[in-house]
Amino acid sequence: MYDLIIVGAGPAGITAGVYAARKAMKFLVVSRNIGGQAALSGNVENYTGYQFVTGPELAAKFEEHMKHFQVELREGEAAAGIKRVDEIIEVKTDKGLYRSRTLIIASGRRPRLLDIPGEKEFKNRGVTYCATCDGPVFAGRDVAVIGGGNSALDATLQLMKITDKIYLINLTSELSGDPVMQGKVNQSGKVTVINGAQTREIRGEKMVTGLVISREGKEEEISVQGIFIEIGSVPESDFVSGVEKNKRGEIIINNRNETNIPGIFAAGDVTDVPGKQIIIAAGEGSKALLSAFEYLSREK
Amino acid sequence: MYDLIIVGAGPAGITAGVYAARKAMKFLVVSRNIGGQAALSGNVENYTGYQFVTGPELAAKFEEHMKHFQVELREGEAAAGIKRVDEIIEVKTDKGLYRSRTLIIASGRRPRLLDIPGEKEFKNRGVTYCATCDGPVFAGRDVAVIGGGNSALDATLQLMKITDKIYLINLTSELSGDPVMQGKVNQSGKVTVINGAQTREIRGEKMVTGLVISREGKEEEISVQGIFIEIGSVPESDFVSGVEKNKRGEIIINNRNETNIPGIFAAGDVTDVPGKQIIIAAGEGSKALLSAFEYLSREK
Repeated sequence: MYDLIIVGAGPAGITAGVYAARKAMKFLVVSRNIGGQAALSGNVENYTGYQFVTGPELAAKFEEHMKHFQVELREGEAAAGIKRVDEIIEVKTDKGLYRSRTLIIASGRRPRLLDIPGEKEFKNRGVTYCATCDGPVFAGRDVAVIGGGNSALDATLQLMKITDKIYLINLTSELSGDPVMQGKVNQSGKVTVINGAQTREIRGEKMVTGLVISREGKEEEISVQGIFIEIGSVPESDFVSGVEKNKRGEIIINNRNETNIPGIFAAGDVTDVPGKQIIIAAGEGSKALLSAFEYLSREK
Repeated sequence: MYDLIIVGAGPAGITAGVYAARKAMKFLVVSRNIGGQAALSGNVENYTGYQFVTGPELAAKFEEHMKHFQVELREGEAAAGIKRVDEIIEVKTDKGLYRSRTLIIASGRRPRLLDIPGEKEFKNRGVTYCATCDGPVFAGRDVAVIGGGNSALDATLQLMKITDKIYLINLTSELSGDPVMQGKVNQSGKVTVINGAQTREIRGEKMVTGLVISREGKEEEISVQGIFIEIGSVPESDFVSGVEKNKRGEIIINNRNETNIPGIFAAGDVTDVPGKQIIIAAGEGSKALLSAFEYLSREK
């Protein structure tokens, strides 16, 4: 029986873990991976205090920070369900069942799919959702990035370092990411930005050979070997039942990270807090832990 | 006329500034000082990503991060009043008047006073509110720390390095700070913890010579040359009128850092968000900026 279970070990879960350790709580962290979406970022230039750091570097610092304490961590374990019975919260995973007095859901997000023909078929055969992880494989190849926000620009900036021909395929009439990043993309001479384009199909044989897009009613096929899908993400909240979520599946929390169920808190990108940012998730993790701690103090 | 004025340059204001710069907004930062309460902390061990860093070091990293961008910064300038006229927000300071379409109030907090005889008289003559700033002056002297929470424990830990006789005077029946810090204090052999004690008077001649406390109805005078008052803080919100505050004077915000006045946002320790932590303030600064940016996009 734990004081607290934290599901997820991205910036929110790790920060909650650091605070829980410093408060000497009896707690367990269950997570598929360490670092969450942060570990998949390219350059992070807006985590205050670090002017320049890569996502994997920052995630490694987070991990090291948490592991500096004696933390009971089940890595590679996925939450499958939660249930509250007589003020006790049960967390079921793919490997076991744990009981706790409080729970912080910090399970983050997973990439949104394009949902077009060829996407599933060519996943990991040219189709990827992580420029940081998979970019290097495409050195010197022609590639397309799908999207127009910061994630797509970040992927593009990373790819600019390793290849000279990048198509940036954007659904809307103009890019929406930070001007600083847009400036770098435009000045490179390596990126063809195609605005107002819909993606229709991914084609290939063993590996991806092309991407079909349509603009102003006309279809065309672009020849590429790699396709980076960066059109946002969806909350990792399918395992969460009985807790109020918004129509996007995000867990609804108040200013103190409380959900509608006593003892269950949520933090970071899985919640309805609008900014999906590392520094925001970290702050939310700290807030959630302080609320859980206060809840336990009140109940005792 | 600015897109945005940020009042305050602690973790919340600086993070808002970093995000504003990356979004190429036309903005101004007005602040009495740089670093806010963070710069006054001793060791910071819970800013995720930095296992060990001192408050002044972390504040310097924050400052450097913001100044890496071209930021218009009025340092040493104090906000004196705000007013919203025809969708324009006017910020009056002790040196000028500025106009903006949005405002982020991130003015932080100042130390709470004991409000006992001798406190004002001996301020800076033995009475201090900042162990980090003033501790070194008291090397080898007998000192008292007033308080029982994390700030008081942090001050005590700092003083343990430079002197051997420290009284920790706590109003309640037990210390409330983190167990990790309590453990260090208890193991040192240098700290006499006096619980359940009220402070009555600060005595001295040119400089502090003693502190009068009362316990179980009995008064006694402790001979000390330094008194570190660490009993919490109050929000720096006196200059804010027309914006809803709670009874503690904290600015009331929602999950998106909106106040009750359109175009006016708040972030960090000046708000009613419960955890007063560097990582929380930084996250809130980012959230406030994203909300202000969205507000401007909507209005345009």
